[in-house]
Amino acid sequence: MNRKEALEMVKPHLTEHRYTHTLGVRDTALTLAEKMGADQDKAEIAAIFHDYAKFRSKDEMRGIIKEQQLDEDFIHYGDELLHAPAGAHLVKKEIGIADEEILSSIFWHTTGRPEMSNMEKVIFLADYIEPNRKFPGVEQVRETAEKDMDEAIRNALSNTVTFLLQKNQPVFPGTLKAYNDITFKKQKNKGGK
Amino acid sequence: MNRKEALEMVKPHLTEHRYTHTLGVRDTALTLAEKMGADQDKAEIAAIFHDYAKFRSKDEMRGIIKEQQLDEDFIHYGDELLHAPAGAHLVKKEIGIADEEILSSIFWHTTGRPEMSNMEKVIFLADYIEPNRKFPGVEQVRETAEKDMDEAIRNALSNTVTFLLQKNQPVFPGTLKAYNDITFKKQKNKGGK
Repeated sequence: MNRKEALEMVKPHLTEHRYTHTLGVRDTALTLAEKMGADQDKAEIAAIFHDYAKFRSKDEMRGIIKEQQLDEDFIHYGDELLHAPAGAHLVKKEIGIADEEILSSIFWHTTGRPEMSNMEKVIFLADYIEPNRKFPGVEQVRETAEKDMDEAIRNALSNTVTFLLQKNQPVFPGTLKAYNDITFKKQKNKGGK
Repeated sequence: MNRKEALEMVKPHLTEHRYTHTLGVRDTALTLAEKMGADQDKAEIAAIFHDYAKFRSKDEMRGIIKEQQLDEDFIHYGDELLHAPAGAHLVKKEIGIADEEILSSIFWHTTGRPEMSNMEKVIFLADYIEPNRKFPGVEQVRETAEKDMDEAIRNALSNTVTFLLQKNQPVFPGTLKAYNDITFKKQKNKGGK
């Protein structure tokens, strides 16, 4: 499957707005993958399909999470988390992508997780900072990403948790774990210098 | 042990500033305990001894946590967490307080936890809002506590997490769990109405 075919396959599953976002994530993921030394071809495919399940019904996505015995926290901590694990499953089943690096970067692109792989970092961050994103704080994360990808990811995670707290919404524990993981690593590196 | 004896026992372990804070927690805990239907005598003793270990050496407190096989997260997530679990142990050992309700409200007074007992809520919140506390956001939590203790506790937990995120500090997972616990219960109550 080449780039053109991939885009043709994902397009019918997205709104125009979401397709534009996907193109932004694709462009940003290519840049970040180069910076991180991650495989650019895989990063491009992961980016193109990262929101593949975005417009599936919540019932279908919840069904997949239960059926596949995935962590049910994905069900309890807000409907906007469903499409990432459900998407990884559907991209495998319907598109035939079997590469675990790609699938796992789709799986974790909304929440993050501790010990993220480079590919997971690329897709998580590209989704957050691609040029069509306009929310408060995104510009600072973009600037930080130029110098320090892990710090940019930590800022994105921190912004997400703060945003949910401000809205009195529950916070997916894995997102805080991802933040703590980067924080401890940075403290350790600092201490070791 | 009466109130006067308890105050005499704790005083040598605290600075003047911290003793004044303790008196504030005591007064506030009495009010909150009445509101929550918690035992006022126990709340008073718990409040008086809640910071008993505050000025012990970090090595001593870390030693207690390891020796007593307590959750080592209390060691890794910032030194200001040590005195609560270490305090519960020392109050039992040195003062002879055996009441589990009192000891556990000392144990959890800094971090909170999911499924807090009424006594734990009283001490946690009294420590946060007693009249000598001046930090940003405290006035709003005080006002909320007049109407809704759980909402006040949620706000206090949320402020604490936000404060740590702003400082790029690690966040004790139990504190977020406590926030999520109250948030889910509130969503459920709302849904059930």
